[in-house]
Amino acid sequence: MKNWNDQKTARAARIAAGQTVADGKMIPAERLTEFLEAVIRPGDRVCIEGDNQKQADLLARALANAAPARINDLHMVQSGVVLPEHLDLFDRGIARRLDFSYSGPQSARIARMLFGGQIELGAVHTYLELFARYFIDLTPNVALIAAVSADREGNLYTGPNTEDTPTVVEATSFKDGLVIAQVGEIVDRVPRVDIPGDLVHFVVDAKKPFYVEPLFTRDPAAVTETQILTAMLAIKGLYAPYGIKRLNHGIGFSTAAIELLLPTYGEALGLRGRICSHFALNPHPTLIPAIEAGWVEQVHSFGSEVGMEDYVAARSDVFFTGPDGSLRSNRAFCQTAGLYACDMFIGSTLQIDLAGHSSTVTTSRIAGFGGAPNMGSDPHGRRHPSEPWLKAGAEADITSPAPLRRGRKLVVQIGETFGDKNVPLFVEQLDALALAQKLNLDLAPVMVYGDDVTHIVTEEGIANLLLCRSTDEREQAIRGVAGYTDIGRQRDRKMVERLRERKIIQRPEDLGINPLDADRSLLAARSIKDLMLASGGLYKPPSRFRNW
Amino acid sequence: MKNWNDQKTARAARIAAGQTVADGKMIPAERLTEFLEAVIRPGDRVCIEGDNQKQADLLARALANAAPARINDLHMVQSGVVLPEHLDLFDRGIARRLDFSYSGPQSARIARMLFGGQIELGAVHTYLELFARYFIDLTPNVALIAAVSADREGNLYTGPNTEDTPTVVEATSFKDGLVIAQVGEIVDRVPRVDIPGDLVHFVVDAKKPFYVEPLFTRDPAAVTETQILTAMLAIKGLYAPYGIKRLNHGIGFSTAAIELLLPTYGEALGLRGRICSHFALNPHPTLIPAIEAGWVEQVHSFGSEVGMEDYVAARSDVFFTGPDGSLRSNRAFCQTAGLYACDMFIGSTLQIDLAGHSSTVTTSRIAGFGGAPNMGSDPHGRRHPSEPWLKAGAEADITSPAPLRRGRKLVVQIGETFGDKNVPLFVEQLDALALAQKLNLDLAPVMVYGDDVTHIVTEEGIANLLLCRSTDEREQAIRGVAGYTDIGRQRDRKMVERLRERKIIQRPEDLGINPLDADRSLLAARSIKDLMLASGGLYKPPSRFRNW
Repeated sequence: MKNWNDQKTARAARIAAGQTVADGKMIPAERLTEFLEAVIRPGDRVCIEGDNQKQADLLARALANAAPARINDLHMVQSGVVLPEHLDLFDRGIARRLDFSYSGPQSARIARMLFGGQIELGAVHTYLELFARYFIDLTPNVALIAAVSADREGNLYTGPNTEDTPTVVEATSFKDGLVIAQVGEIVDRVPRVDIPGDLVHFVVDAKKPFYVEPLFTRDPAAVTETQILTAMLAIKGLYAPYGIKRLNHGIGFSTAAIELLLPTYGEALGLRGRICSHFALNPHPTLIPAIEAGWVEQVHSFGSEVGMEDYVAARSDVFFTGPDGSLRSNRAFCQTAGLYACDMFIGSTLQIDLAGHSSTVTTSRIAGFGGAPNMGSDPHGRRHPSEPWLKAGAEADITSPAPLRRGRKLVVQIGETFGDKNVPLFVEQLDALALAQKLNLDLAPVMVYGDDVTHIVTEEGIANLLLCRSTDEREQAIRGVAGYTDIGRQRDRKMVERLRERKIIQRPEDLGINPLDADRSLLAARSIKDLMLASGGLYKPPSRFRNW
Repeated sequence: MKNWNDQKTARAARIAAGQTVADGKMIPAERLTEFLEAVIRPGDRVCIEGDNQKQADLLARALANAAPARINDLHMVQSGVVLPEHLDLFDRGIARRLDFSYSGPQSARIARMLFGGQIELGAVHTYLELFARYFIDLTPNVALIAAVSADREGNLYTGPNTEDTPTVVEATSFKDGLVIAQVGEIVDRVPRVDIPGDLVHFVVDAKKPFYVEPLFTRDPAAVTETQILTAMLAIKGLYAPYGIKRLNHGIGFSTAAIELLLPTYGEALGLRGRICSHFALNPHPTLIPAIEAGWVEQVHSFGSEVGMEDYVAARSDVFFTGPDGSLRSNRAFCQTAGLYACDMFIGSTLQIDLAGHSSTVTTSRIAGFGGAPNMGSDPHGRRHPSEPWLKAGAEADITSPAPLRRGRKLVVQIGETFGDKNVPLFVEQLDALALAQKLNLDLAPVMVYGDDVTHIVTEEGIANLLLCRSTDEREQAIRGVAGYTDIGRQRDRKMVERLRERKIIQRPEDLGINPLDADRSLLAARSIKDLMLASGGLYKPPSRFRNW
């Protein structure tokens, strides 16, 4: 007779094994590796919590120190491969297979290890997609998570950086997996219950906060005049005519420039209340001036941002906050909001090809996707209309009868024709293709596919791909904003002029913008200090961003 | 100087007003309407929890009894408009505007009221899309939710029907809204904490369970031989060649027939372990024989199903269950799983037009969407490959180089050419279009758009729309499986034969299926009683399904 509760039995056995080391739910920090060796089994699917922000760093380190004879063949299923320890696991033979989403700082090493065969790659996902698989075919057996504090029953407080925790815990704990949390302190009563204790099996007191990366802080001092020009083009040429109220911004300087121009250039255009009122966005410090000027009605966040804690708590009408007063972030819900409730995604990229495919991959780096492919895609399951969405849909589809014509999400790529180190943004072929061949991948790691991109903005102008009626027109529209790159210089000048007549390409002068006006004086804040001052001292920049 | 915490102040005022009626968090049930009049303000956005399964029925009734002079102009933002009281709110002038997802039993009345101007319609959404907007521009000010039990601190146990509750509470409570829960009983300690008490402001003891509709129970006795034939076609002609392991089934009899054929017909084809191992699915009673036969590895569920509680608890290796032993469902995560982690959605519909658009709307009913448009759409943000997905993508796209060719989700419409009351499935024009004109809607309520549909299965055969290279071919592929309907009879016979040679159309005989073999003896269970017996008595069918 088949036993149908093997997983619960197995978990009970793991808990019993763990309790030979732990005192109730409490693991002595100095015996953490020994504890993990007692509860983790070879071949387990394991999630070490971590994304582009918070990290369960103590647990990652303890697992990397385990004896490969005890723990091996692990299948890591986690948002971020960010800490060196995440890859040490593979070097040491503790882990074998990897499914992940983001690997910013480890992107070069991960590429080398994939090429060297030390990692067996499942797939590179977007965050929401990996979360989805946690409930279907990549459910973790063990989750190693991070929180701010715990009480003695294992109730967890995750504070402003709640991020992935509820999703990871739900998938693991309710499918009979083991949940182990590192916390910064043990308290009598947590400020709010982010994770109920009955879902948490063990807790280790790290005696210090988990690591958090301030990834979304952009210093206004580093914003270039070209970025200011592209921001002006975006605001006047896209945000205003489409009336974009609900949106997500990428993390680059180009979108930081847009945020910093709202209270100045945007105000002068009379756009307050007409654009940028509702965001799916982390608490970007560069958004402070727009918030203070009354532009922003509501922001829901994937995670928090280092130094923004007090500001967010003091602006609870704008942000989601808990009964304790601090930010409540939630990556799964914010990604869902970015997918289905936003009319625009705008972000930067490293390479764009002639079909409009874009990628942040280079031949030697696999940075992963994070959230961009999810937010930078047209959601076919959307059924609610909005003005920007209907307008974009009508531009793209001139054959369907109106009530059968879906709208389109605006997916905008913004950048300078020549980026960092004068590397051209536009290319004949994405490096992602070469990498796919080199690693024998089924799919090239494309960030946003050409059929989802609606507009490309450079200092030369805006290309509206929705209005293109053939692949030829599309290619020339892209060439037409590619400036002095090879791609740009090989344009068909006559065709580009015709595209301009049809407003498929719009130059600064077509929008009444004088590039000479693109001046740093337009920035509502010109330094991190300005941002701190604009916040009334509530924003506390991390020390690496302070120079006063 | 601007005050940035108005919402927290306003909530504190509501709580104070509520406490003039309530004792701490506990509302006396007999004063519930008076209580709601004290805490709800005219113009509030209000969510009464309810979907196609569970209902906060006591709270709906109490709100419908409120004095319109006290509560009016409400904007209802909720998954389900299912109970008569949900519409009484509009009749009585308490509510004015509506954004929703599903309205099964109220679909005729809602259409009449929209046409009569008694309801101002926001939009009809898919579930996940409405949840997304809860975090951006449709955040509730007040949520009226339902749980099984509460303790005195307001910690809630939602039991197997957790469904929408965590999502509604997260959006409302963390944006300074008020959360009011009805529970079946007050207990000293809840069996598990589904909602932490610090997010719940008031609780009313209804002294009986909330209402739940057994919407996903299909009596095998009502499965027709035509449905058995279409199920055989789907299993042998789609599931097997694509190797579909991760999928979602709709709620109709056609997919119930597939579930009931797995342990018989599927077993004979040697498909166990090769298809149907991982589901995003409610605990369908018709899945019991396949589970018992060892077909199903894992199921994640949107909600529960009445009578399946003990069976699910006894099969915890298959289902997600909590520390209390009972099912954990979660609509938001399961919809996400259906979107991003499943390779196939297969469901029935009422009408399909020549472009492949389908709809369950008739001219006098607006049933809403529920989850189908989300799961029945190709997710452009997906980045992980799988065999079925790559195969479908390669069939559709013969021009892109392989690493730049995305896969495709299989979106299958299955049905009989003539449905209930001999109404044809195939039509020249969807009734949804007439309805859109009548109600002056921007968008016709299309369930699945033609560009997302990959296959149509009827008793006449399978049409593979991925292989069609023109709209003409598509139209004839659809006509070619439309049988004796007007649409089917107007086919271009020569072209249909050519499509068959190219395997764009496959007849039963092309797949080695003899329609005469489509016999009820193939069903692994032929009655509700058979299902109960197959479950070893663990499945307890609701009385309306019992005839023994």
